[in-house]
Amino acid sequence: MAKPVLTISSKNYGAWSLRGWLMCKLAGLEFSEKIIPPDDPAMKAEMLLLSASMLVPSLQHGGIKVWDTLAIGEYLSEIKPKAGLLPADAKARAHCRAICGEMHSGFSSMRGSLPMNVKARFPGFKIWSRAQADIDRIVAIWRECLSTYGGPFLFGETPCLADAMYAPVVTRFVTYDVSLDKACTAYCKRILELPAMQEWIRSAKAEPDEIDELDAEF
Amino acid sequence: MAKPVLTISSKNYGAWSLRGWLMCKLAGLEFSEKIIPPDDPAMKAEMLLLSASMLVPSLQHGGIKVWDTLAIGEYLSEIKPKAGLLPADAKARAHCRAICGEMHSGFSSMRGSLPMNVKARFPGFKIWSRAQADIDRIVAIWRECLSTYGGPFLFGETPCLADAMYAPVVTRFVTYDVSLDKACTAYCKRILELPAMQEWIRSAKAEPDEIDELDAEF
Repeated sequence: MAKPVLTISSKNYGAWSLRGWLMCKLAGLEFSEKIIPPDDPAMKAEMLLLSASMLVPSLQHGGIKVWDTLAIGEYLSEIKPKAGLLPADAKARAHCRAICGEMHSGFSSMRGSLPMNVKARFPGFKIWSRAQADIDRIVAIWRECLSTYGGPFLFGETPCLADAMYAPVVTRFVTYDVSLDKACTAYCKRILELPAMQEWIRSAKAEPDEIDELDAEF
Repeated sequence: MAKPVLTISSKNYGAWSLRGWLMCKLAGLEFSEKIIPPDDPAMKAEMLLLSASMLVPSLQHGGIKVWDTLAIGEYLSEIKPKAGLLPADAKARAHCRAICGEMHSGFSSMRGSLPMNVKARFPGFKIWSRAQADIDRIVAIWRECLSTYGGPFLFGETPCLADAMYAPVVTRFVTYDVSLDKACTAYCKRILELPAMQEWIRSAKAEPDEIDELDAEF
């Protein structure tokens, strides 16, 4: 079978791309990347949330094509059951899927006003109240997971789909100078120290700044 | 173990409630309903997409609480493996989850400008171009599924999670007088004829019209 191919977009701006890519890394999948440039018209429409299509992330594995980040996560969990992408305990697994689902369909104020931008730093960034409500909910989710399952990751010893779903938020909290309590600060540090995250961040920082106008339009 | 309880909101307006409820019915789960009135402040905020919380749908089953519609679907699929909520074939299952994911996180123009309103009829309703793009994508998804898997449901002989995810869209197409091709019209008819859908629609029609202002604010 040919090597699986994951199609993604900008590593600096593509939050969904990061989620899908990190899931593949956590699964231990050997894959190639296909990068759609962010100035591709279809890609630009998708990044501006104007598109009905779903170009990224998308995983081609043999004859199977999976798009949508959660579907990719469930697929990886099926083909790599030993990677622990979903918690083994049924109750924890339901909890994990619930908070993955919250990230997948919600937090639009936070996502809209604090778009992922790995390279940038905005010290003292002023957060709009609705985005703050989203951040408060994310912090509550993290605190509950870390105290229930004991850390260091959201569902215990190994990073799982939920950690991948919230990883772009971790980079946003750095970019937009969001203050967090001790437990959440430590959690963010742990995520950022993952070798896969380090690799992604290096690539994001190396990306040319060709899409300033996209950044400005967000 | 106590009977599972599904918490939902308005049957006339609650598209997510319908999805979760229909999944439970398709799973063959015996459950009670707990209905949060739509004029409950937290519920109203959630229906107006202003809330970071996820009150509905939510399933309490013994000691396990699952919220978020997709997480409920995956949970039901695990506890009721014979119900066929996910296709048995791996490729079809990946496809099913991908289109469930598209509905879960996307189609915001269609959802915003054609909100579910089971009782209402708007003949000749004028559809905004972005909502039309969403509708075009939904039609493309349905047509591909119906031709690939042969119908009568999206993934073959029995309704699955994807049919539940798109069921509120079927009611919207009726409410807003959306013209469809023959295959999609027949598919909508099949969904509306499901005994569970008939039961939901009867309840929706029996709901008092106490939230006209909510409807107006959408």
